[in-house]
Amino acid sequence: MDAADPLAAFRDRFVIDDDVIYLDGNSLGRLPRATPPRIAELVAQEWGRGLIRSWMDADWMNSPLRVGDKIAPLIGAAPGEVLVTDTTSVDLFKLLGAVLQAEPRRRVLLTEQQNFPTDLYVADGLTRLLASGHKVRAVPRDALRDALDADVAVLTLTHVDFRTAEVHDMAALTAAAHDAGARVVWDLSHSCGAIPVHVNRAGVDLATGCGYKYLNGGPGAPAYLFVSRRLQEQLGNPIQGWLGHESPFTFVSAYRPAAGIRRWMSGSPPVIGIAALEVAIEMFLEADMRRVGAKASQLTELFIRLADARLTRHGFEVASPRDAARRGAQVSLRHPDGYAVIRALIDHKVIGDFRTPDLCRFGFAPLYTRFVDVWDAAERIVSVIESGEHRRAEYAERAFIT
Amino acid sequence: MDAADPLAAFRDRFVIDDDVIYLDGNSLGRLPRATPPRIAELVAQEWGRGLIRSWMDADWMNSPLRVGDKIAPLIGAAPGEVLVTDTTSVDLFKLLGAVLQAEPRRRVLLTEQQNFPTDLYVADGLTRLLASGHKVRAVPRDALRDALDADVAVLTLTHVDFRTAEVHDMAALTAAAHDAGARVVWDLSHSCGAIPVHVNRAGVDLATGCGYKYLNGGPGAPAYLFVSRRLQEQLGNPIQGWLGHESPFTFVSAYRPAAGIRRWMSGSPPVIGIAALEVAIEMFLEADMRRVGAKASQLTELFIRLADARLTRHGFEVASPRDAARRGAQVSLRHPDGYAVIRALIDHKVIGDFRTPDLCRFGFAPLYTRFVDVWDAAERIVSVIESGEHRRAEYAERAFIT
Repeated sequence: MDAADPLAAFRDRFVIDDDVIYLDGNSLGRLPRATPPRIAELVAQEWGRGLIRSWMDADWMNSPLRVGDKIAPLIGAAPGEVLVTDTTSVDLFKLLGAVLQAEPRRRVLLTEQQNFPTDLYVADGLTRLLASGHKVRAVPRDALRDALDADVAVLTLTHVDFRTAEVHDMAALTAAAHDAGARVVWDLSHSCGAIPVHVNRAGVDLATGCGYKYLNGGPGAPAYLFVSRRLQEQLGNPIQGWLGHESPFTFVSAYRPAAGIRRWMSGSPPVIGIAALEVAIEMFLEADMRRVGAKASQLTELFIRLADARLTRHGFEVASPRDAARRGAQVSLRHPDGYAVIRALIDHKVIGDFRTPDLCRFGFAPLYTRFVDVWDAAERIVSVIESGEHRRAEYAERAFIT
Repeated sequence: MDAADPLAAFRDRFVIDDDVIYLDGNSLGRLPRATPPRIAELVAQEWGRGLIRSWMDADWMNSPLRVGDKIAPLIGAAPGEVLVTDTTSVDLFKLLGAVLQAEPRRRVLLTEQQNFPTDLYVADGLTRLLASGHKVRAVPRDALRDALDADVAVLTLTHVDFRTAEVHDMAALTAAAHDAGARVVWDLSHSCGAIPVHVNRAGVDLATGCGYKYLNGGPGAPAYLFVSRRLQEQLGNPIQGWLGHESPFTFVSAYRPAAGIRRWMSGSPPVIGIAALEVAIEMFLEADMRRVGAKASQLTELFIRLADARLTRHGFEVASPRDAARRGAQVSLRHPDGYAVIRALIDHKVIGDFRTPDLCRFGFAPLYTRFVDVWDAAERIVSVIESGEHRRAEYAERAFIT
């Protein structure tokens, strides 16, 4: 399978000088080889020598838009619809705030109970701040459609579930929300860079996602947001900052939003973080998201087959969808000793992570994960569980795993 | 004066391999020598090899608090009162939002008309989002005290004026606000790293500031916020993100704010940017802000004396306070051809910047600016203006200067 993999050569474009099987690219992606020299050049030349002139001469000022335009094809957006800025939490706050501001009569933010917690916290915090009768309605996954009534201002969901990797039907839920007169805000953190996403084909209004997971932008990389062209003049950024002003350097007192996606900037862009993200994104443009998504399906399929054949007898249960079309680039296995198993595996150089109460998560980032890694990982899980390694006292204590 | 300067040796700790006289450290500070190797190590070792484990093993998780604790002495705050997070615009939004949320009966955000525009935009955007009768009252500088009435929820000001470098009396205005029952939020972007600041001695409630000006944290460096210990349990962060949760890795649905300053985190911290800022801050801890402030007074004093002696005859007018105690580390000169003068000076290797309508700004970052640079800069300004260089057609066009 590795010999037949059209993406196989991409692995050499990452720094991999260890024998770790890294299945946590869904939390923090690996380091692209092109990143350290690019950062070094930016720091030494653009900052060190160019100094303040680099805002123009090195195009720092436009980097949030330029890199946004490179992310656009990965999510099926058009140029001028994506901006790199802030964090996913802040971007989600901005987008939800903008929708509520534009449609003050609808008071409900609809979401699912199992949404990524920060998405729930952001929505809750926004309603508390507004203090005007808005509320978050969090329902079970299968009750979302029925909950779409005339009070719903916005449906906000994470495209790929962070626990199970189950994929929402973005087009169908977006259409249902629109039928109910609501807007949608999708969190693409666990899908962009893992599987194909088509926001415009699905009619999506707004979206955001993070740069440090499958996109390999580095620890705490900046996030991005998508605003559909058809809404760009209707919605305003509630965190009005100078770089979102139509004329930031005239320093006038009154805020006038810039045209297009630029108005979603608030403060100064994190130039170094954006440059690191840009280098990483460029690989995906070469790789093509259809091939990336196809490989994600194959990698996860292989792991599920190995789990069925070798792991279920040891108490593991596949928690991710068996239908590849409904699955992200991750497979989660339930196990009563899941936490200790993950801790023991890390010491045996297989890095996955754990989510309460019993989920072992394994992410298969398609650009650098080989099929042999999937095979070897299953082998080492069997070895750990059969040897009882995971029962060592040191693994019982719940230290923190990101 | 350079021979007698106790901070003279710090200049060698910056990358300065050009003959540029850089007087724009108030916009983007110079590159510390220690920064490139620290970033390279973080990227190659902590990210490249440590991967996800570095959130714990390299203490990424606590870096916003650790570097906050290093900024604290620069602004007269205590450990546990400062956090590195987001941008100044977003931090200001959070702090203002928190105050309005805690005190819903008071509806006015008081500020001065000449405040840094982004501070005005942020306040305005917040009131629009709340849509519940809040308003921004922006008055002239000398009308601030009289405008402090029972409707004022918060007085928000920038400590050092970005145009003229005039310093507000932080203690007196904070006391006046408290007498009126209002909170204060200070923007320290143009003071921290330039002059001594004592937020606790002045009784300040809340503050924020940026990392890329005098602090030399690099382009788009993260910002920091200060929340007085006495308010930490009373106020909530309106952008509720998972890293501000008391237990982020249990992934519970309900937000419960972390104790202390940690609740002001929202999304994942910008790890590379924080590391670059940390390296830069450490120099200030060695330098001591009293000595930094004393040198800022001397540098700006010398420039004003040279301006009086050699530049006023050419139409320049000193726009900054002559009383050193009321002046930041910057001197602004008004000139009818100010824009063209700054453009011509850049080509003559003196980098300052321009603010509408007629202000030439010169920042004197104390850690790397020599007294001889002040002298030479004045010399080159005279040379440009006497030769009529600035009248060249290319300098008339209003290209953008940051």
